[in-house]
Amino acid sequence: MRGRARARLIAVARADEAPDTVVEGAQVFLAHTREWVSGDVAIADGMVAGIASFEGGERIDARGRWLVPGFIDAHMHVESSKLTPAQFARAVLPHGTTAIVCDPHEVANVLGSDGVHWMLDASEGLPLSVFVMAPSCVPASAFESPRRELTVGDMEAILRRRRALGVAEMMNFPGVIAGDAGVLAKLEVRGASHTDGHAPGVTGRALDAYAAAGIRSDHEATSVEEALEKRRRGMWVLLREASNARNLRDLLPLVREHGPDFCAFCTDDREPDMLLREGHINQMCRLSVAEGIPVEDVLAMATLHAAQAHRLDGYGAIAPGFRADVLVLDDLTSFAPSLVLAGGRVAARDGVAEPFAVPDIPAHVLGTVRSAPVAEADLVLEADGPVRVIEIVPEQLITIERTVDPARSTGHVVADPSRDLAKIAVVERHHATGRVGRGLVTGFGLRDGAFASTVAHDAHNVVAVGVDDADILACAARLQALGGGIVVARDGRITGELPLPVAGLLSDRPVEEVVERLDTLHAQLRELGVTIEAPFMTLSFLALSVIPALKITDRGLVDVDRFQIVPLAAG
Amino acid sequence: MRGRARARLIAVARADEAPDTVVEGAQVFLAHTREWVSGDVAIADGMVAGIASFEGGERIDARGRWLVPGFIDAHMHVESSKLTPAQFARAVLPHGTTAIVCDPHEVANVLGSDGVHWMLDASEGLPLSVFVMAPSCVPASAFESPRRELTVGDMEAILRRRRALGVAEMMNFPGVIAGDAGVLAKLEVRGASHTDGHAPGVTGRALDAYAAAGIRSDHEATSVEEALEKRRRGMWVLLREASNARNLRDLLPLVREHGPDFCAFCTDDREPDMLLREGHINQMCRLSVAEGIPVEDVLAMATLHAAQAHRLDGYGAIAPGFRADVLVLDDLTSFAPSLVLAGGRVAARDGVAEPFAVPDIPAHVLGTVRSAPVAEADLVLEADGPVRVIEIVPEQLITIERTVDPARSTGHVVADPSRDLAKIAVVERHHATGRVGRGLVTGFGLRDGAFASTVAHDAHNVVAVGVDDADILACAARLQALGGGIVVARDGRITGELPLPVAGLLSDRPVEEVVERLDTLHAQLRELGVTIEAPFMTLSFLALSVIPALKITDRGLVDVDRFQIVPLAAG
Repeated sequence: MRGRARARLIAVARADEAPDTVVEGAQVFLAHTREWVSGDVAIADGMVAGIASFEGGERIDARGRWLVPGFIDAHMHVESSKLTPAQFARAVLPHGTTAIVCDPHEVANVLGSDGVHWMLDASEGLPLSVFVMAPSCVPASAFESPRRELTVGDMEAILRRRRALGVAEMMNFPGVIAGDAGVLAKLEVRGASHTDGHAPGVTGRALDAYAAAGIRSDHEATSVEEALEKRRRGMWVLLREASNARNLRDLLPLVREHGPDFCAFCTDDREPDMLLREGHINQMCRLSVAEGIPVEDVLAMATLHAAQAHRLDGYGAIAPGFRADVLVLDDLTSFAPSLVLAGGRVAARDGVAEPFAVPDIPAHVLGTVRSAPVAEADLVLEADGPVRVIEIVPEQLITIERTVDPARSTGHVVADPSRDLAKIAVVERHHATGRVGRGLVTGFGLRDGAFASTVAHDAHNVVAVGVDDADILACAARLQALGGGIVVARDGRITGELPLPVAGLLSDRPVEEVVERLDTLHAQLRELGVTIEAPFMTLSFLALSVIPALKITDRGLVDVDRFQIVPLAAG
Repeated sequence: MRGRARARLIAVARADEAPDTVVEGAQVFLAHTREWVSGDVAIADGMVAGIASFEGGERIDARGRWLVPGFIDAHMHVESSKLTPAQFARAVLPHGTTAIVCDPHEVANVLGSDGVHWMLDASEGLPLSVFVMAPSCVPASAFESPRRELTVGDMEAILRRRRALGVAEMMNFPGVIAGDAGVLAKLEVRGASHTDGHAPGVTGRALDAYAAAGIRSDHEATSVEEALEKRRRGMWVLLREASNARNLRDLLPLVREHGPDFCAFCTDDREPDMLLREGHINQMCRLSVAEGIPVEDVLAMATLHAAQAHRLDGYGAIAPGFRADVLVLDDLTSFAPSLVLAGGRVAARDGVAEPFAVPDIPAHVLGTVRSAPVAEADLVLEADGPVRVIEIVPEQLITIERTVDPARSTGHVVADPSRDLAKIAVVERHHATGRVGRGLVTGFGLRDGAFASTVAHDAHNVVAVGVDDADILACAARLQALGGGIVVARDGRITGELPLPVAGLLSDRPVEEVVERLDTLHAQLRELGVTIEAPFMTLSFLALSVIPALKITDRGLVDVDRFQIVPLAAG
């Protein structure tokens, strides 16, 4: 805010000019002292001018209610919502989220740095404040095939953009701890104010080594002890409640016993159904208060602390010169705001977002499935003797490596639904190389048909699972035609689909439609015998070659513990 | 820290390479959790690698003792010490101060932006980390005559320097609150990460207006209520203990009742005798603990909080990847470190600084007294009837305006020691304009002779007080010859002097010598009848035209309340 607007804000604070808006008579949360005061909050040009008694302006009666700063998500990936930034904003604003710090590394895998620049463009002017960290780990490993590697130069170009803050989660913690020069170079990019971490289970000397690299946050702690070790080393502890990693309840004793300093909330990866049915940061507030954490500490973590963790001056508090992101709460237990102001304007009311202009989607982020046509020969599994099988672990990202004597037909290894052995294939889709990684997977319970997705962490090639090659081929062909999405096939034809035209990752539809589509697909999978929760999410992580034990990319099976490509044949 | 040094630090943390130094077995303060843990602290290339058990390296036995981060002064002016940055470092390192954030606005008044650049040059490579804020208020008012105005362009040039952080204390709070465009422009300079405030006694709507300008700290609060108001508005409260403003004890109830969040320590202006005899930030720790504040809260305010207030990543804690500024304390009451490590090297031991290379002083900061020769005619006071007199208030910066029927001789108003009425003159000394402001002052008790100084806030022209014109002229001539300093004269000749050759503000000698010289001058003034404490400090503020009520500059008497030049003749 500069020049005349700043002078006007100051004049409104002095009560010499009328505010644009006054929220009257609420109990106002002061994040810097974790106190409540009563008063009118005056807003001018999207900023808070002061808390006192004010005349004029549009009046919002909040007497008998609570006024708190808008919630901030300290670390997340918009792509997990399968929504564009605009639709994501529409989904979370009613829950009171007014700012996010996102790492757009999924679109970066598909679109290179153009994907990150698009994320910035596509979030320009939204009522939701979208801050971006420069992805540090594209590709996630040498076994993955994204469009291209994101270089230090790409990161520096991203960091020249307004709203780009620092280096996104450094997932290559073994590389950091080993002191790998290429990895450390990514921590030294120009223009970064700070670096986020990602160090699951890393403690002791290894954590010292990781922190010594200058990494100042982590969102992967799953126990109080781990989180406390990180906080002691000067790292912000970003308490996480993701669709696939609900860590909040386990971590709250840290806050109860050691206070909320250097703690903030984050969602990391939330599927659209969780956003729709449970909420966003407000769900974390609800849970924390229910678990007995003082509401003032909860609100500090949900607001100011996230801003501090990211050096976001002027966010996260209701104070003069801060952005007027303000929630009216009717109670301090449900955290369902009856009114959401973002930048001083009404952004949501009673759980519904107000309409806002949605940026057009440019052609270059569409039509990104460029796989070579897949033929039956691409799915042939050849191996003598026992073979490796990926065993999924329900509701976890890790897998187990099993050794199995497979069924064979005409000399080839084939799926065997009677023993829950399905075929899995990863088809390279960025450069039409025709590369197809093949293997077997167990644990889905699939008895018939196939399903496939272009959401396949982190390179987002086409990943398909099936007990029938024709159905797998139908899925691959349909994804090519759709430009990406999630599909189910049976008897050689597609039975259901969720198109994800943007980068093969995101729908352009509202969250309600996306969830409805996914519900339908889930029902179809259940009919095909799939018993686990969230099979598409599980599928999407089978290609992520940095989480143990046995994974698969377009280059083949990856033994993550030994960090090398392994053949289908075991031993 | 980049490249190979970073990789080595990480290797030391892993215990794969030997550290440079290991501080063994102390109780180590963890600033982020305000806990103590026992362990070895490993240091490599000036940084902390980890806290664990380490082999090799130079060993420092700290068993049975306490290890805390080096102290940080969150707001101060080096010039108040009358020491060069190197001599200041030598003075405060033994007290455990390893970093300061200074506003060099005194040298900026004398030397323009060159003075600030010199402050940065002269502090390069010192064991003390010196951070600089870009002065925002040179001149302090339109009634003062510094070398030249410091412009927005000058500030931006300063902020391009390494170790330059943000906008220094915005003292023109009336200008901010009024929304003055020129003042607001200084808050919008490029390259500033944040802006420090200065808002004595400002509360309520006026404080809202001041904070709405984006100002995020204040060090002028003198009461808990005022400090709490500031903290509630998102401003860092920098608790001050200066030579002329000992506010700490009055403010500590804020910490006791509301915790240490958003509180840090600062010294603002400390005279050399206070540094030598009482210490620096460690004196504030000593006092705070004696007043019953938990030692962990005290240490957080003296270290990490100051770093946070100034976005100084990697300072203020003993944690991996933080600068190894570390103090060994034998107790937690005296805060007299037995060993001080700065950047991993021994900087002081048992109260004595280790030798270090002192930068040469360049010629352009010397010989800055460029006043025109002063003649008896320049001191003539002409006024009919009663006249205005500046009445000093002991130990305060404010003055009172009195009206007196003066003594007269040959038609001119003259000093009258029998009624404690002395002559005061301010001689412009930057451009040899020959401008001399003249008036009368009461309250010193001077019976004979004169004294004068080139330390005269903020423009630092020559200020002289005397009951004998010949002695005043002797003082002015001697200051010209010295290139600045403090002098005393009697019977037409100089009886004592402290040369301050650097900008007319700083000695190039160690603190002990400066204090000894000042002690001698104080004794001489007592012989001349001066009864008040710290007469030179009082003198130096009589020219500061922004503190009520009646002050004097080279342009004449200033009625600060009406903010205009007024004649000697009253009414």
